[in-house]
Amino acid sequence: MKPIRIENPQDERVSAYVDIRERDLVGRQGRFVAEGKVVLDVLTSTRRFGIESVLVLENRLAGLQHILERLPQDVPVYVAGSEVLDRIAGFHMHRGILAIGRRGELPDAAGLLDTLTGGALVAVLVGISNHDNVGSIFRNAAAFGADAVLLDRTSCDPLYRKAIRVSVGAALKVPFAVFDDPPALADMLAARGFTQFALSPRGELDIRDARCEGPLALYLGTEGEGLPEAILSRIRTARIAMAPGFDSLNVAAASAIALHRFARITE
Amino acid sequence: MKPIRIENPQDERVSAYVDIRERDLVGRQGRFVAEGKVVLDVLTSTRRFGIESVLVLENRLAGLQHILERLPQDVPVYVAGSEVLDRIAGFHMHRGILAIGRRGELPDAAGLLDTLTGGALVAVLVGISNHDNVGSIFRNAAAFGADAVLLDRTSCDPLYRKAIRVSVGAALKVPFAVFDDPPALADMLAARGFTQFALSPRGELDIRDARCEGPLALYLGTEGEGLPEAILSRIRTARIAMAPGFDSLNVAAASAIALHRFARITE
Repeated sequence: MKPIRIENPQDERVSAYVDIRERDLVGRQGRFVAEGKVVLDVLTSTRRFGIESVLVLENRLAGLQHILERLPQDVPVYVAGSEVLDRIAGFHMHRGILAIGRRGELPDAAGLLDTLTGGALVAVLVGISNHDNVGSIFRNAAAFGADAVLLDRTSCDPLYRKAIRVSVGAALKVPFAVFDDPPALADMLAARGFTQFALSPRGELDIRDARCEGPLALYLGTEGEGLPEAILSRIRTARIAMAPGFDSLNVAAASAIALHRFARITE
Repeated sequence: MKPIRIENPQDERVSAYVDIRERDLVGRQGRFVAEGKVVLDVLTSTRRFGIESVLVLENRLAGLQHILERLPQDVPVYVAGSEVLDRIAGFHMHRGILAIGRRGELPDAAGLLDTLTGGALVAVLVGISNHDNVGSIFRNAAAFGADAVLLDRTSCDPLYRKAIRVSVGAALKVPFAVFDDPPALADMLAARGFTQFALSPRGELDIRDARCEGPLALYLGTEGEGLPEAILSRIRTARIAMAPGFDSLNVAAASAIALHRFARITE
């Protein structure tokens, strides 16, 4: 691995990194941006996604050797000084570690479910549009051995730069798929033998009393509106008991409790 | 309650609101800033802290009547247009709801523990310097009926504006105290009959198997370094089991799981 020095912010070879924040908003034609050492570590070790190139600050290079050694031979590693890197990215990159990944062909929900075996644990997100929450939920999904995350189209893209960063790379590790219609998904999961719990403050079961053998799907909705009525009326609902007068829980915190409750872990 | 209109950003009556972000960093001589409708709701309803004044955007006034009605007669409510408010605060205030609270005399740890009775649940934070995490932990503490939060001096001030906001007001509701020396605190809690668990990835007990009758203290440390050895060697340690290869959990998520496990709730 021989780093390629970039002196000119307009260099065509680093055009994928130009104005990173602006581009977050418009998508990237099949690519995503991975940012930071921990995320690069996951990206290079899980190998779920192709890597197009890496761009790092010159003074970070030495500390990344063990990660960069894992890259396929044909992946270029670009190196730049702080000023050049900031001008490429369009803001001050104090982390100074970036990579462009290829999204590739993402499976649809049915295709992803076909790959799961035995007592799978799946998180289903409906309307979770905040990247911090989606990133945190992926982090919890990875920590508690969830096999997949399914997201409706109104949820945030897990490969959005900030979602990947908050997930500390879990969004590059836990398989996910996007689905169109929540009730249709619930019917499909039921047909495949999944037990399904919709988390809701007014759920019929206390989650501590919920039992499940075999595959399980946990549905998480927004903090405000919650899950759609079409889901709440279709599957069992479970609540996380809270103190009267302050029944407010962040959805990522709710996911931590629920995924831990049904964690698929063999220590 | 008759709102007082502010036309001049330099008006002395709103000087406490000037350059809010800058002042976050230097402290405020016995005051704190509460921001947003939910937080103002908690501030005015719990009455744990005195309120010096309220400053709101003119178009938010109507929606706040039921909250502002709770204010003592002598608390002025200032109203400003968007441009004036932004010039006072020093940045664009799209929420447009601010209040200045008085910290008052905060109890020390011993004083706060003296007020607790029976099977109290207490969270102990060591080195949690990130406001998002401190805010989230307070939110979880309130949701699961914790009676107090004790923070060491290296942890973030719970009355920092962003911590209050992330806590959705819980930092104004759950009593807290700051302590100097973690081992000395552990000895004090032991002398008061508290069961104590230090959360650690290498804890001896799986938290699902941890049992406790009577008062309980749960210790949370940083994600990086964790709790100091002087704590880990002094009290029982408990782990949240995680998947091999991704044993990474945000400290706020860990607090959600642990506080839920020992929640003091009577539904």
